[in-house]
Amino acid sequence: MNIYDIARLADVSIATVSRVVNDSPRVSEKTKEKVRRVMEENHYTPNVFARGLGLNSMKTVGIVCPDVADPYMAKAVSYLEKNLRGYGYDCILYCSGYDIEDKQQAVELILKKRIDALILVGSNYADEKLDCLREAAREVPVFLINGYQPYDNIYGVLAEDYQAVYDVTEELLLAGKKRILFLGSSDSHSAMNKRRGYEAALLAHGLEVETELVQYSKNEVFAARDLLLRCRLEFDGVIATEDGLAVGALKYARARGLKVPEEIAVVGYNNSELAVSCEPELSSVDNRAEALCRTAIDSMMAVLSGEEIPGKQTIRCHLVKRETTDF
Amino acid sequence: MNIYDIARLADVSIATVSRVVNDSPRVSEKTKEKVRRVMEENHYTPNVFARGLGLNSMKTVGIVCPDVADPYMAKAVSYLEKNLRGYGYDCILYCSGYDIEDKQQAVELILKKRIDALILVGSNYADEKLDCLREAAREVPVFLINGYQPYDNIYGVLAEDYQAVYDVTEELLLAGKKRILFLGSSDSHSAMNKRRGYEAALLAHGLEVETELVQYSKNEVFAARDLLLRCRLEFDGVIATEDGLAVGALKYARARGLKVPEEIAVVGYNNSELAVSCEPELSSVDNRAEALCRTAIDSMMAVLSGEEIPGKQTIRCHLVKRETTDF
Repeated sequence: MNIYDIARLADVSIATVSRVVNDSPRVSEKTKEKVRRVMEENHYTPNVFARGLGLNSMKTVGIVCPDVADPYMAKAVSYLEKNLRGYGYDCILYCSGYDIEDKQQAVELILKKRIDALILVGSNYADEKLDCLREAAREVPVFLINGYQPYDNIYGVLAEDYQAVYDVTEELLLAGKKRILFLGSSDSHSAMNKRRGYEAALLAHGLEVETELVQYSKNEVFAARDLLLRCRLEFDGVIATEDGLAVGALKYARARGLKVPEEIAVVGYNNSELAVSCEPELSSVDNRAEALCRTAIDSMMAVLSGEEIPGKQTIRCHLVKRETTDF
Repeated sequence: MNIYDIARLADVSIATVSRVVNDSPRVSEKTKEKVRRVMEENHYTPNVFARGLGLNSMKTVGIVCPDVADPYMAKAVSYLEKNLRGYGYDCILYCSGYDIEDKQQAVELILKKRIDALILVGSNYADEKLDCLREAAREVPVFLINGYQPYDNIYGVLAEDYQAVYDVTEELLLAGKKRILFLGSSDSHSAMNKRRGYEAALLAHGLEVETELVQYSKNEVFAARDLLLRCRLEFDGVIATEDGLAVGALKYARARGLKVPEEIAVVGYNNSELAVSCEPELSSVDNRAEALCRTAIDSMMAVLSGEEIPGKQTIRCHLVKRETTDF
């Protein structure tokens, strides 16, 4: 029995229970009575709510990501840790790997710790099959960085990946590119949104989506290059879901003797250090990792102090233009 | 009062105290008597030793690094977390930043948690001025990844950076390079060892160390390029302490129209993804992050089960050769 059970039994949000405890004027008398009745029936006193509300807590947040060696996740974890510590919170880090069983297990293990909130990094955790998140949300508020699940006490902060790739695809089409290849490495929530953005832009410009122009590679420079060399397709643009894949496309262009961006334009994603290390330098979508993390932490602090916040918040991404799209 | 105090008062190692508690035949009767006397005088029973010996512990390890967004540290933390969890240990992560005050504070804060051991990632923690590590070592065993401090209960696992840079410098000299520039970004323990290896190789080949050929830049591609453009020196080789700096040297070569490696050879360090993303591809020293972490974890498990291990262990590094040294 905890604040989440009370909220569920009273059929109100956790924030409402918190407001009732604090006797906030923003809650109707009718609701207050209902919540108080549930509390009494279950022999509950406000003190018991301490954990969920950040009072008398361990001031510890659980962070789960598939692999902190991934530069995008490393950046996010670094940002989260720094800012959470600024609020006096410690971080327990779990790297879950990518398999669904391992992800379930990581969430179950971390919940056994006394944590005040759970933050999951990466759109890998948006999978509805991950029912452990719903279980977790009955105990602590759950925050998804670039993910979303439509359940109570799960809060998603999302990069607008669909729109970003739509815009980039359109930009290449307007620059005269006719056959743009989409290069992905996973079917995560975010990767699927990127693909949908690509397809929608093609359709909006009266082009068909050619299935052979949607390719998937391991997220590794030479794997991507070799895949493109092997598949022997003609294309004049590449939109990649990761910078490493885009660098692979540049290696492909070099191996084929193709001029960038005249004969082949290339766009990466994440705007990582790779984008400025390659030649020519890579145009890449800034997916706003810091803004996503900052929003998640602000949301967490709000939820832990009993405020109500939107279940889903989105952040606009933008293309950082460099030589590979310098028409 | 804890196991470390007993060891200090009895003037033996912690491992010895542990062996006495377990009545190991490897300890002389004389030593056993001495240790037992100290324990009795201080009203100590073996149970009190539980924490340091991994019995009845929280199974939690504190990991401190300056910034987990750094790819080298991210790789190390990822590896440590994965393997520690394999042993059933949780990880509390603290990113301390680079300032000595912040590092002291991070160590003090993490010691307030119930941790079984403390692991510090990066040669930034080899600084003797960090006296908090000696304090920490009185409570839990401390492990330095690529660092060393000559105190009881502090264990260092080091990459052989001196030798690696010595060998690389010699290789460039033997290939006919006459003026090799050393490009660093910090004065960490590891960075100083690299510099000493560079200088020793020059001296061994009858060359003087020219101070203007030792340059320091922020660890960022364009900062390094601009520094080299600005300082207007003539050199035919660059040995950089980080891949990002080496990529900056490649950008410099491109801006100056110099052929790589004929007119300028470039070597990086860490063998990161940057090394295969740039053009030409970068020769880079593999600093064996995984081997360092594995050794540290093996050592930790040994110390926690009361075994004695060397205070310092070193791991050999080697150059991964690519186009920038392909003579």
